[in-house]
Amino acid sequence: MTKTIVVCSGGLDSVTLAYKVAQERTLSGLISFDYGQRHKKELDYARLCADQLKVPHHIIDISSVGAALTGSALTDDVAVPDGHYAEDTMKATIVPNRNAIMMTIAYGIAAAKGASAVAAAVHAGDHFIYPDCRPEFTESFEAMQKCALEGVAEIEFYTPFVKSSKADITAEGARLGVPFIDTWSCYKGGDVHCGRCGTCVERREAFDIANVEDPTIYKDADFWRQAVKEAV
Amino acid sequence: MTKTIVVCSGGLDSVTLAYKVAQERTLSGLISFDYGQRHKKELDYARLCADQLKVPHHIIDISSVGAALTGSALTDDVAVPDGHYAEDTMKATIVPNRNAIMMTIAYGIAAAKGASAVAAAVHAGDHFIYPDCRPEFTESFEAMQKCALEGVAEIEFYTPFVKSSKADITAEGARLGVPFIDTWSCYKGGDVHCGRCGTCVERREAFDIANVEDPTIYKDADFWRQAVKEAV
Repeated sequence: MTKTIVVCSGGLDSVTLAYKVAQERTLSGLISFDYGQRHKKELDYARLCADQLKVPHHIIDISSVGAALTGSALTDDVAVPDGHYAEDTMKATIVPNRNAIMMTIAYGIAAAKGASAVAAAVHAGDHFIYPDCRPEFTESFEAMQKCALEGVAEIEFYTPFVKSSKADITAEGARLGVPFIDTWSCYKGGDVHCGRCGTCVERREAFDIANVEDPTIYKDADFWRQAVKEAV
Repeated sequence: MTKTIVVCSGGLDSVTLAYKVAQERTLSGLISFDYGQRHKKELDYARLCADQLKVPHHIIDISSVGAALTGSALTDDVAVPDGHYAEDTMKATIVPNRNAIMMTIAYGIAAAKGASAVAAAVHAGDHFIYPDCRPEFTESFEAMQKCALEGVAEIEFYTPFVKSSKADITAEGARLGVPFIDTWSCYKGGDVHCGRCGTCVERREAFDIANVEDPTIYKDADFWRQAVKEAV
């Protein structure tokens, strides 16, 4: 089966992807990126996922890149906005070109390690804000890599969730037996999920739509209903 | 004029490109990459170039990536091969996906800094060994970036040397008044250019073909003729 490296942030989507690859392909390992994000909590959850699936975990430090890419709330001293993933508030969380940067590095590692696929959990829910989560991106990216590595390696870009919603992924995760409690989504770095930031609201909403029990402990467990209502 | 960031290694090609951009466009700054190469000498020459052209110089540390990309003589404890840039010997110097990685990072920085172009000195002389120096790569790369940054930034990939030989670039550098003595090509990190490694041989040959005086001091100044003859 296809030896596949999964880019894993420790979040619900990429941990579900790791479980999917482990069950349906050959999972070679997980790669996570330290791009100077304000909390490293998600990296701990990626490590936990690798441990559970008994594969190596590589953390690639690109914080020097993150420092050069100023202007994003994920790395700067800008407040993380509360509320639903609406365009206005969440544009502050864009790290320019982040996916393309992480994927080229993942491809380099895959080529060096002899893997035949790189898997990433880009998904439809992010399309309207993040251009590098759209099918046009994943297709043009794979085409570019085909040119860049011609004669060196043939590596598939495996993005099975590119047309799925986060609720679809949550349903898939439930089917695969993903321990959702061992995933981290919150953009803030507290002891528990805040329940108010864009990813917390989106996470809670996804469980609700998928009709899957949400084991997550949120500091503010009710904010999401109001945020979703306001975003409609 | 188009605000352009130049990816500069401190070598003859990319320093010539920096001078070209400074004279024909608006040069915003130089970016160099520390990917754990065994000597950092070339980074000093990139800094010198930035000083001479009076623009900022950013060194991006991706040595953590280099460490993960094993199997290359540029970063590993493998001997750098002597001789002409022939396929067999020089394949050892391939860092998988290096250009794609560096260019996506450069694009992210350009987007963050509001530049409208990224310039790189990929050139025809490298085509037959490095797939990520071919026009197919630069074209597919620009197409991918158009998708990845749609609505965020429009950034041109400026690669004026993609169909030029190194001799063409040397001639262009002479025309632009590039101080060739302030560029570094050697893969080894000695006090002077070794004259025997692939880039030294290629450098010396380029001056010869371009009929430009070569101010470089080589430890072994005559090896190149024999290496070129053997490669024919």
